[in-house]
Amino acid sequence: MTTATTRTTVRAYHQARFQGDIPAAARTLSEPFHFQSPLLTSDSTHGHLSGLDAFLGIVTGVDLVSELYGETEATLVYDVRTSAPAIGTQCTAEHFHLTDGRIDSIRLIFDATPWHAIMRAVSPS
Amino acid sequence: MTTATTRTTVRAYHQARFQGDIPAAARTLSEPFHFQSPLLTSDSTHGHLSGLDAFLGIVTGVDLVSELYGETEATLVYDVRTSAPAIGTQCTAEHFHLTDGRIDSIRLIFDATPWHAIMRAVSPS
Repeated sequence: MTTATTRTTVRAYHQARFQGDIPAAARTLSEPFHFQSPLLTSDSTHGHLSGLDAFLGIVTGVDLVSELYGETEATLVYDVRTSAPAIGTQCTAEHFHLTDGRIDSIRLIFDATPWHAIMRAVSPS
Repeated sequence: MTTATTRTTVRAYHQARFQGDIPAAARTLSEPFHFQSPLLTSDSTHGHLSGLDAFLGIVTGVDLVSELYGETEATLVYDVRTSAPAIGTQCTAEHFHLTDGRIDSIRLIFDATPWHAIMRAVSPS
C-alpha cells in the first residue's frame, strides 16, 4: 500500500459517489465495511448509498477543499452546494480507512442540524 | 514549509486547545486568521477560543482518530468524549491551512444538532 494507491481508490470512490454510480463506488469498498455519519450507520457496502439518488437530486456542485492521503487512510474536506435553502452549502469531512487498497471504513462528518427537519417532513412516521 | 513544520504547529495548537492554554494556542495562529464552525465564525485569533473553558468543563477525553499533514495544510479527525448525555461523543474533523508555519484558517466540522438545545438553555434570549 502506498499513498498513491490510497489516492486512486479514494478519488474513484468520491467521483463515483457524486456521479451517482453506485456499482463503481461499491467496487472501491471491502467486506467487512463500516460506515458512520451523523444520520446513519451501516455495515453494508450498499446500505449507506441507498439514498444517494435523492441526495444528488439537490446537489448542484462539489468543491474540494482538501485531500490528504496516508498509506492506509485519507481525509477529504469538501463543500457540497445544494439547491435546498435550508441546507445551503454543506461543509463536509470524510475520513477513509483502507486495507489492501480498498476502503473498509468511512466516517462522514457534517452538521446534520438542517437535515432533521427535512427527514421529518419526508418520513411517514 | 514542510509537513514536519505543519505537524509541529498543528499538534501544538491541538494540545494547547484541549489543555485550555489559550495563549499557547493563539501563538500558533497568524493574522489575518479565519475560523469557521457550525456554531461560530471569527476573524480574531482569540474569538473562537473565548468559550473554551466552558467547553472543556464537559470534556472527559479526546481520542485522535487520524492526523494527516501536507506542506500548508492538515486535517485531524478526533472523538471528543463529553460528560453531557445529550452530546455523548462528538466526532469532529478539523482542517487547518498554514502560511509561513502558522495557522491562518481553521474549519471545525461536527454535527451541531445537540448543541442548539444546550445553547438555547444557557442563552438569555
